[in-house]
Amino acid sequence: MIQQKTWSDRFEGSLHPAIVQFNASIGFDIELIEYDLTGSIAHAKMLAHTGIIAPEEAQQLVTGLEQIRQEYRQGQFTPGIDQEDVHFAVERRLTELVGDVGKKLHTARSRNDQVGTDIRLYLREQIKDIRTQLREFQGVLLNHSQTHVETLIPGYTHLQRAQPISLAHHLLAYFQMAQRDWERLGEIYARTNISPLGCGALAGTTFPIDRHYSAELLGFGGVYGNSLDGVSDRDFAIEFLNAASLIMVHLSRLSEEMILWSSHEFSFISLTDSCATGSSIMPQKKNPDVPELVRGKAGRVFGHLQGMLVLMKGLPLAYNKDLQEDKEAIFDGVKTVKGCLEAMTILLGEGIKFRQERLAQAVAEDFSNATDVADYLAARGVPFREAYNLVGKVVKTSTAAGKLLKDLTLEEWQQLHPKFESDIYEAIAPKQVVAARNSYGGTGFEQIRQAIARAIAQIEQT
Amino acid sequence: MIQQKTWSDRFEGSLHPAIVQFNASIGFDIELIEYDLTGSIAHAKMLAHTGIIAPEEAQQLVTGLEQIRQEYRQGQFTPGIDQEDVHFAVERRLTELVGDVGKKLHTARSRNDQVGTDIRLYLREQIKDIRTQLREFQGVLLNHSQTHVETLIPGYTHLQRAQPISLAHHLLAYFQMAQRDWERLGEIYARTNISPLGCGALAGTTFPIDRHYSAELLGFGGVYGNSLDGVSDRDFAIEFLNAASLIMVHLSRLSEEMILWSSHEFSFISLTDSCATGSSIMPQKKNPDVPELVRGKAGRVFGHLQGMLVLMKGLPLAYNKDLQEDKEAIFDGVKTVKGCLEAMTILLGEGIKFRQERLAQAVAEDFSNATDVADYLAARGVPFREAYNLVGKVVKTSTAAGKLLKDLTLEEWQQLHPKFESDIYEAIAPKQVVAARNSYGGTGFEQIRQAIARAIAQIEQT
Amino acid sequence: MIQQKTWSDRFEGSLHPAIVQFNASIGFDIELIEYDLTGSIAHAKMLAHTGIIAPEEAQQLVTGLEQIRQEYRQGQFTPGIDQEDVHFAVERRLTELVGDVGKKLHTARSRNDQVGTDIRLYLREQIKDIRTQLREFQGVLLNHSQTHVETLIPGYTHLQRAQPISLAHHLLAYFQMAQRDWERLGEIYARTNISPLGCGALAGTTFPIDRHYSAELLGFGGVYGNSLDGVSDRDFAIEFLNAASLIMVHLSRLSEEMILWSSHEFSFISLTDSCATGSSIMPQKKNPDVPELVRGKAGRVFGHLQGMLVLMKGLPLAYNKDLQEDKEAIFDGVKTVKGCLEAMTILLGEGIKFRQERLAQAVAEDFSNATDVADYLAARGVPFREAYNLVGKVVKTSTAAGKLLKDLTLEEWQQLHPKFESDIYEAIAPKQVVAARNSYGGTGFEQIRQAIARAIAQIEQT
Amino acid sequence: MIQQKTWSDRFEGSLHPAIVQFNASIGFDIELIEYDLTGSIAHAKMLAHTGIIAPEEAQQLVTGLEQIRQEYRQGQFTPGIDQEDVHFAVERRLTELVGDVGKKLHTARSRNDQVGTDIRLYLREQIKDIRTQLREFQGVLLNHSQTHVETLIPGYTHLQRAQPISLAHHLLAYFQMAQRDWERLGEIYARTNISPLGCGALAGTTFPIDRHYSAELLGFGGVYGNSLDGVSDRDFAIEFLNAASLIMVHLSRLSEEMILWSSHEFSFISLTDSCATGSSIMPQKKNPDVPELVRGKAGRVFGHLQGMLVLMKGLPLAYNKDLQEDKEAIFDGVKTVKGCLEAMTILLGEGIKFRQERLAQAVAEDFSNATDVADYLAARGVPFREAYNLVGKVVKTSTAAGKLLKDLTLEEWQQLHPKFESDIYEAIAPKQVVAARNSYGGTGFEQIRQAIARAIAQIEQT
Repeated sequence: MIQQKTWSDRFEGSLHPAIVQFNASIGFDIELIEYDLTGSIAHAKMLAHTGIIAPEEAQQLVTGLEQIRQEYRQGQFTPGIDQEDVHFAVERRLTELVGDVGKKLHTARSRNDQVGTDIRLYLREQIKDIRTQLREFQGVLLNHSQTHVETLIPGYTHLQRAQPISLAHHLLAYFQMAQRDWERLGEIYARTNISPLGCGALAGTTFPIDRHYSAELLGFGGVYGNSLDGVSDRDFAIEFLNAASLIMVHLSRLSEEMILWSSHEFSFISLTDSCATGSSIMPQKKNPDVPELVRGKAGRVFGHLQGMLVLMKGLPLAYNKDLQEDKEAIFDGVKTVKGCLEAMTILLGEGIKFRQERLAQAVAEDFSNATDVADYLAARGVPFREAYNLVGKVVKTSTAAGKLLKDLTLEEWQQLHPKFESDIYEAIAPKQVVAARNSYGGTGFEQIRQAIARAIAQIEQT
Repeated sequence: MIQQKTWSDRFEGSLHPAIVQFNASIGFDIELIEYDLTGSIAHAKMLAHTGIIAPEEAQQLVTGLEQIRQEYRQGQFTPGIDQEDVHFAVERRLTELVGDVGKKLHTARSRNDQVGTDIRLYLREQIKDIRTQLREFQGVLLNHSQTHVETLIPGYTHLQRAQPISLAHHLLAYFQMAQRDWERLGEIYARTNISPLGCGALAGTTFPIDRHYSAELLGFGGVYGNSLDGVSDRDFAIEFLNAASLIMVHLSRLSEEMILWSSHEFSFISLTDSCATGSSIMPQKKNPDVPELVRGKAGRVFGHLQGMLVLMKGLPLAYNKDLQEDKEAIFDGVKTVKGCLEAMTILLGEGIKFRQERLAQAVAEDFSNATDVADYLAARGVPFREAYNLVGKVVKTSTAAGKLLKDLTLEEWQQLHPKFESDIYEAIAPKQVVAARNSYGGTGFEQIRQAIARAIAQIEQT
Repeated sequence: MIQQKTWSDRFEGSLHPAIVQFNASIGFDIELIEYDLTGSIAHAKMLAHTGIIAPEEAQQLVTGLEQIRQEYRQGQFTPGIDQEDVHFAVERRLTELVGDVGKKLHTARSRNDQVGTDIRLYLREQIKDIRTQLREFQGVLLNHSQTHVETLIPGYTHLQRAQPISLAHHLLAYFQMAQRDWERLGEIYARTNISPLGCGALAGTTFPIDRHYSAELLGFGGVYGNSLDGVSDRDFAIEFLNAASLIMVHLSRLSEEMILWSSHEFSFISLTDSCATGSSIMPQKKNPDVPELVRGKAGRVFGHLQGMLVLMKGLPLAYNKDLQEDKEAIFDGVKTVKGCLEAMTILLGEGIKFRQERLAQAVAEDFSNATDVADYLAARGVPFREAYNLVGKVVKTSTAAGKLLKDLTLEEWQQLHPKFESDIYEAIAPKQVVAARNSYGGTGFEQIRQAIARAIAQIEQT
Repeated sequence: MIQQKTWSDRFEGSLHPAIVQFNASIGFDIELIEYDLTGSIAHAKMLAHTGIIAPEEAQQLVTGLEQIRQEYRQGQFTPGIDQEDVHFAVERRLTELVGDVGKKLHTARSRNDQVGTDIRLYLREQIKDIRTQLREFQGVLLNHSQTHVETLIPGYTHLQRAQPISLAHHLLAYFQMAQRDWERLGEIYARTNISPLGCGALAGTTFPIDRHYSAELLGFGGVYGNSLDGVSDRDFAIEFLNAASLIMVHLSRLSEEMILWSSHEFSFISLTDSCATGSSIMPQKKNPDVPELVRGKAGRVFGHLQGMLVLMKGLPLAYNKDLQEDKEAIFDGVKTVKGCLEAMTILLGEGIKFRQERLAQAVAEDFSNATDVADYLAARGVPFREAYNLVGKVVKTSTAAGKLLKDLTLEEWQQLHPKFESDIYEAIAPKQVVAARNSYGGTGFEQIRQAIARAIAQIEQT
């Protein structure tokens, strides 16, 4: 049976059952229960600290709240739809447990600042977890990088082979993206970790509360300086969903490459059985489900970001019921990012094997050393544009003849230009082509080793 | 325990448990189970119809599938995460129930065309429901309109009072929006109601199936003409989510007005207790939670639409695992739109009361009849721009004097312009101002009565 | 110098120059000028038709408006920022040209219904153009399809080779997507082609206008039945941008494939010089800029769709200035889709060449005929799951041995299973594998020929 | 005439004219020209610094580039569509001006790192400007706040009057939002201000460049440590567009309130002539166009954010032509935010007047002091829930009787509850109600004065 709400006696009729259902948030905000209990405990202690309630009363409240935590963890506290939201459900159970003193918990507090506190406590915890996951993800990238400094792989622009590079260099690009994600989340953590507790419904309270005290108990880094702002700000949620979207952008790019690399045509990696799935009807198939799903989940997180922006657009101050819609977007954004980071870390860690023989063959079979021929001539005094055009012609005639640059005889080279000498073969060998790009941040092996050292230093930050 | 997958013997190792979890869709695609059973029954019948399996075999399959339906409805069939997806779960249970013949069900079918069939069966049903709900929503709008043909309300542009209008006229604007929603969904229904069954994994099948037969059994309006397209098309989902977004646009506009109208400042409606909620600390509050939540939920549906577009962008043919992500967006889009339509229909039907005395006062207390003064003069030969400027001045001096136009004496009118006569009072009376806008589709009462007649005719279409 | 606005004498001060700039739409709505002139001409004729102005007056107005059209086309009419918007600019110029009668043009009309008319006239024209472009795009797809019925290409799921298919079949999948785009735009055309002219500011007008007459002159299919709805409805713009987004989804999928296919690894197509670009430093590069740009432009159109939804969410009736923001989104959406359709049509028409030798080699070099081995056994009475597992093993041992299925000796086949006979070689030859999928909509050659015939019939619809 | 591209001699044919048009970015990237020149000058100096070119050559290049800057500023350098992009256009003009040495400018550089440098130089400048604008916006909010510490205004939740607050408190909420915007942009500035120059096409360069030297000349705070990341990272653009979206969220909320407050119903502010516009047909209208447009423009910026996320999703490394699409989104995002901040600052500064008599009346005419009656009793020992229910009843009976709380006689109060005494009138006087909320961050006047002092300190940060 759907219970009558206990608002003030101004109300006579009861809510339409479908509306009770429509308004209720208990179906999803139960996820906040532990944060709600923690927040309430701090609030109770503050009330005693400032003399608003007696110390014994606070002790009773804390004991009751901790008991609810135990009941919840043991699956004994499962409030239904008639409880409207997790805050009411807890308050009711508390009063059952500790009697009338339970009704004092809500003194000098409103659901508006209470729910704002809960969601921030929740999110800051999730941000910490995600930063830890980013470190693990960076770890597997770094492991592969250390192994593959001298493993060559074609480097692409426009998905056309451009210049060969070190595989470690390629993987370290993702390390750097994750590093930015880690830093960005650190900044967002700081802006999330501000306490709205004590902002009341919108205007503060007439009770002599101590907001800094409860904030300190909860580990907040500060308190909102304006109560209207405190109850209606959701910037932190949007910032988080944007950071989550950027993580998904990065993971989706890596996923795309995993999918390409595991295709028959690229064959740069093979999938191990721990991360690949088969087909229900095609016995030869091994499908890269993990990176496909990760790529697919990007849109979901972008959608949540947009949903939150739309939610907030044009809302007058202060609290509006629309804000109840923030939770599911945040929850699913958190869950998606955590799931994808875990899956990609497993995929990289044990789900793929680099096919080194295939990679070695790949960098030897194309014209991605053409720039180096032009550079060879340029270094011997031929104007770059002339050299560039000459090489363009060689590529065309060689392609037509089914030859690669390394297949040209010294005679053929010298017919093309008298400056070519026998060291041209060394200059266009893939390993030399890579080694020569020794500018800071480039793919030269020496640069990679320095980049790995920097990455190790970065990952040790916490 | 997480079960070993039963792909071909090409696979030796087992999936990482976290990856099993990550890949599984059973957590949400169980929502499709009844459609999956229905689709499988039709497929089994087709296999017998074409002689691919024996009639007795088909009968066994159908019986088994119907039994699973009963088990599901009675809460006895609750597949866990180890079952990967609803299709596998059903196939396994079927084989338990009917033995090896169960393995024949998947003949000439792939999960790719199977899931495409299920989601279309699901969505077409939901579209029908939503169209029915739109009709109910239109019904309550129409009821109010019939009651309030001659109830006046300020008409706004830029949220500034512009010209008084009939309340029925205002509500009928929403009727028309809902009518477009209804029509649009009808077109999308037709494009959704196409069978991909028999497209196989991507290329069709070598079995002599009869796709038109199974389509007919399932009530589809046609079959996909290209198997690659059939397994990878999700246009219908995007079209649906766009139509859902438009419904939310319309409902959010109405919600905004309900929120404004129930504010102290407007006071055009009062909220009954069946749809309003109170505050936990402010005893005087009655909050319009329903329209606030509806307005807030708009962003969620827009987000799903974007998520689906992002999902599909740039996917090569044919099926990719990314497509698994289509379901939750569709499901939540459906659930949100249905919930909002129901809630708004209840709100309009029993949750608000128009405060007629306040509306009558509102249209009498402002300058929204100023256009009619200019028209009065224009009709008496004064160039419109001159009349318009003159009225601008009157408004300014009257405002300063704390007077309305109706408060001016005939003498004052005639000092302003000699063409004014005593019928000016009639001309600027709100009722006359409304009645005079008798152009087709305008707010004149005669027009409203015709519009109501047209609306009744529209709503009778099915 | 920024000109004083000529609103009513209620206004004393003048607008802040930065605000004039901020409010002005003339910078972009000049794109509507020809539609504005056409709409005004019809309005003038209607005013005469109903006797609201004299026939000679209407004639003067029409002549003046046509002269402005000439001036605009000859580059002599270039209104500046001080003109606020195209409607004011035209009205002022008209009054300069024809004198005071020019001021009568705005009788019984407001900018709200005027701009609504203009944007619909504009958009319906664009929709027609885009439908024509879709037909051209379908034409090049059909041309290739007719040439390549028997050209084989690997068919993919999960970007893993699945089963060989006809190249025509692959291209016809895009034909079908374009066909849905064409149909969808036809429906949106009908909902766009409704006249709001005569809805006035929001409430209709007191003048005895004939809205059906002006609508007929302008070729509209109907008139808005509710004036509030008429001036504030932008459903058609959102529907268009969604249809545009779907076109971009389809083009981006094809683009992705063009990019993959032109990569060194796939090498299924080569780019001709008419559509490829080089690198400023790498002489060997040929970049698929066209499909990359098309893929990149998808996000832009999705963004416009989202922007329009956000714009409309929660707007109270009727017209609000926010609506001015609809235009640039529509204009850029139109421009982007038209540009992309043209570019992709050129790319397919003359920018690519299929590398048939490479395609033939591709379908012969993998295990995408494995399903057919299982089917071979299944057709000879071996249970499918047993056959499927057997083939899984063969694939694994063959891969390890560096062999393909066709390389197995008959002895080897028969050791695997005694049911194999010498016709196994025929059964797994790529051409036979494709031909055998002769289910409706499948890739079998006979099916393709029928599909082409249906496509020709579809394209002949207009 | 469309000019032949000068790629390598590998190309024979010429680009299709429509494709030249489609690919060209010169139409919008001309906006980057000054940043391109600045970047090229630093690159030239670095080339000389490292001995890659001679000092005299560098001098010639710098002189030529500065001349192009002058030509551009004087409107003499206006490259057409045949110039493809601003980078090519500059290089060509440079070679015209300084001869063959002009061709040396591109040594050790690619367009990929060049354009990345340009866009970062552009954006960091814009971020600085926007932060300055935010300070000005905060300034006008602070000015009003200082004036209106003791001006009361109804405080709302759910758009229902909740508790009266100080107008300064309300405005300072927006001050705090802007403060977060300012801080966030500072962090994004740091991540934008990293140099990709020298990353080459993707892999670095074989030339002995000094990336730190050119970065220092350009005022960058660091250099990209991975060349693949350097040319393909667009995180900063997405971060910026998210920060821009948040600014628009905040401005749209304020806009909504300006629109509400200037409505007839609220009448909390009046619009001055410098920011309001009239209607073309309704002489009494004064429309709040500025906040409506600002609100409308929010969707546009959200759309650009979404567009950029879609653009980046799933792009394989490194540079892809899709990235060309980043510019217009960034440019329009910048332009929109700057325009809106300017317009809102003007609106607040000189476009509105607070109607103090109306505000004073508003806070005296409702039941928003009801919480304080409950608090009054609670402070005298009545349990809060009992007090709350009692007040609910009073509100209902008073409403029915057309009375406010202040209208009750002491006798009536005491009949309700004996604890009421004559100081109840003081306790529920709006000024006292506001003053009593003296918790940190609350609306009490003492709190406001402290908040203003903190705001002044914040605004002095730079």
